[in-house]
Amino acid sequence: MEKKSVVILGATGSIGIQTLEVIEKLDNFYISGIVFGKNINLAREIIKKHNIENYYSPYFPTYKFSTLEEMLEKLNPDIVVAAIPGFDGLIAILQSIPYTKRLALATKEALVCAGPFIKNECEKHKVELIPIDSEHSAIFQLFDENVVKIMITASGGAVRNVKKNKLSKLKPNDILKHPVWNMGKRITVDSATMVNKAFEVMEAYELFNIENIDVHIHPTGTVHGAVLLNDGTVKIHFGFPDMKVPIAYSLTYPERKFNNPKWPKFDPKNFEFYNVDEEKYPAFFYGKSILKDLAKRIAFNAADEIAVQRFLTEKIKFPQIADIIINTCENIRGNVNSIDDIFEIDKISRNFAQEI
Amino acid sequence: MEKKSVVILGATGSIGIQTLEVIEKLDNFYISGIVFGKNINLAREIIKKHNIENYYSPYFPTYKFSTLEEMLEKLNPDIVVAAIPGFDGLIAILQSIPYTKRLALATKEALVCAGPFIKNECEKHKVELIPIDSEHSAIFQLFDENVVKIMITASGGAVRNVKKNKLSKLKPNDILKHPVWNMGKRITVDSATMVNKAFEVMEAYELFNIENIDVHIHPTGTVHGAVLLNDGTVKIHFGFPDMKVPIAYSLTYPERKFNNPKWPKFDPKNFEFYNVDEEKYPAFFYGKSILKDLAKRIAFNAADEIAVQRFLTEKIKFPQIADIIINTCENIRGNVNSIDDIFEIDKISRNFAQEI
Repeated sequence: MEKKSVVILGATGSIGIQTLEVIEKLDNFYISGIVFGKNINLAREIIKKHNIENYYSPYFPTYKFSTLEEMLEKLNPDIVVAAIPGFDGLIAILQSIPYTKRLALATKEALVCAGPFIKNECEKHKVELIPIDSEHSAIFQLFDENVVKIMITASGGAVRNVKKNKLSKLKPNDILKHPVWNMGKRITVDSATMVNKAFEVMEAYELFNIENIDVHIHPTGTVHGAVLLNDGTVKIHFGFPDMKVPIAYSLTYPERKFNNPKWPKFDPKNFEFYNVDEEKYPAFFYGKSILKDLAKRIAFNAADEIAVQRFLTEKIKFPQIADIIINTCENIRGNVNSIDDIFEIDKISRNFAQEI
Repeated sequence: MEKKSVVILGATGSIGIQTLEVIEKLDNFYISGIVFGKNINLAREIIKKHNIENYYSPYFPTYKFSTLEEMLEKLNPDIVVAAIPGFDGLIAILQSIPYTKRLALATKEALVCAGPFIKNECEKHKVELIPIDSEHSAIFQLFDENVVKIMITASGGAVRNVKKNKLSKLKPNDILKHPVWNMGKRITVDSATMVNKAFEVMEAYELFNIENIDVHIHPTGTVHGAVLLNDGTVKIHFGFPDMKVPIAYSLTYPERKFNNPKWPKFDPKNFEFYNVDEEKYPAFFYGKSILKDLAKRIAFNAADEIAVQRFLTEKIKFPQIADIIINTCENIRGNVNSIDDIFEIDKISRNFAQEI
């Protein structure tokens, strides 16, 4: 059996590193190239440890390849794992699609800000789009044409047990303790505001062409999602919260080759579900309400990034994150006809959010 | 689209009646014939209400057909729904297989007492074998080649909340109140002893060729089963306890055509699981231990039927049901090389159980 080649966009990040670990444990996959950013020390370590011949960084263009496309053109990888955050990640994905057969997607901006464009490009180049996020991977594994509703879970983040009237007293350090997942700073704050869950609802809408999406707060992170079928059947995806499982699935799909026979217990503690509190998570509910408005989704992402930065530098209080996001989105409208439009709306939204 | 023809074996029983109701609600299916037993009044009602042209009963052989095979030969139904309990059901199934394309199976004796024979016949005649039981339907809907373990749930029956030392005081009327399903008398007692769950483990073993089968007590009956995959994923089948859903699935598979968009809540109450108590349910554990011994499985079924009869007529106490079953099975051994062997072992076992 021929080995499948994988290029990782964002090899030094959390998803990138876990992808390297997963591929070490799988037969029939190898890293044909990696892309990284400024973390040159970690990149060097990875290149050495995994014997990686091909690598590219926009910050070190004197290396082997002067552009990402040059590397991709040479490698034509079977799979591109897209795990560069932000608009850099979105651009790298658009550059990659013509050169691969499968896009294993972690960069949330791709679908949140450019869903229809990414999907069109994938269709045009016959590229499979497989989500890596645990919730979307769960739905992807369970989805079929009989699904009329989907449910994804949310941890509720660091504020889950904080009273509403105490939210404005929270400092960055209170927020950066996430109960389930250990992630970067922005996504940990996004988890506390549930802005990340609004992003995931938008991504699910793009991936599965479905609007009927419920979210439940679920503390243990053991239920990742569920599909509700027309005949009354519900299929639930259950397992330990471990990103290596969906990463491996995105590589080996439609097979499952990751040997990891460990399952959480059938214990009521692993099946706690609560409704999302509208007053506690206003940004989430706002995000859900703009599901089909791409311009506002771009503004939502841009304003959130600005607001989170200002919260982390203690320039605003925690509840003001939602205020900035909603205020910005309410002032942004328009059609999105091209990738350039996305960048333009993003820029305008950032400026607007900065000035609030 | 051509309509699919269905013959119901056991049209006047609970599964038979629910099958009639389901088919009324489905397009593209019709009843081409029914088989019933002694319940002539209900049969007449059904025949009239559903405009059924072809019917057969071994108790009324002066009707249209003098044998089941005569009717089946004429009808060649797309689907046979097998819902006659006991060995009568087993014989009717063996007679039906050559004349149909799909066997939708509810008769538990078929797989418990004759699993390898039924499977061989189905393979020989290229007949699809689709389970109707809610637990097996759930596993069937979730099963794939990556499953390394399955889990099915049990209500724990009427004795779930009864202390062990009170079991011998229970009268038939105490047992005949089932918490979730409304079923016949024998199966309600079998539910209290969890003998029915031992049957289901045996059936799952035959259907899915898997030995690694866990059972959890689960009071609400909302989780029907789960599959545990090699990569750490668990897929859970969740829904209201309603036999019409798996009946419809057995007819419409691989599609889902039953319009029934009602789902239980994601509420911890719907996800309670307990381990099965070995001292409270000894017959269940014994049944699991003889999973691969077909002769003892036949004895298990035969002795249970005798023991339940004696309990219902108040000749023995509730805990003695298990004693009779285990004692009988321990004294029965041998190879099962033919259907005749099955009948022989059944007869010997019944005699043995009677004499205990």
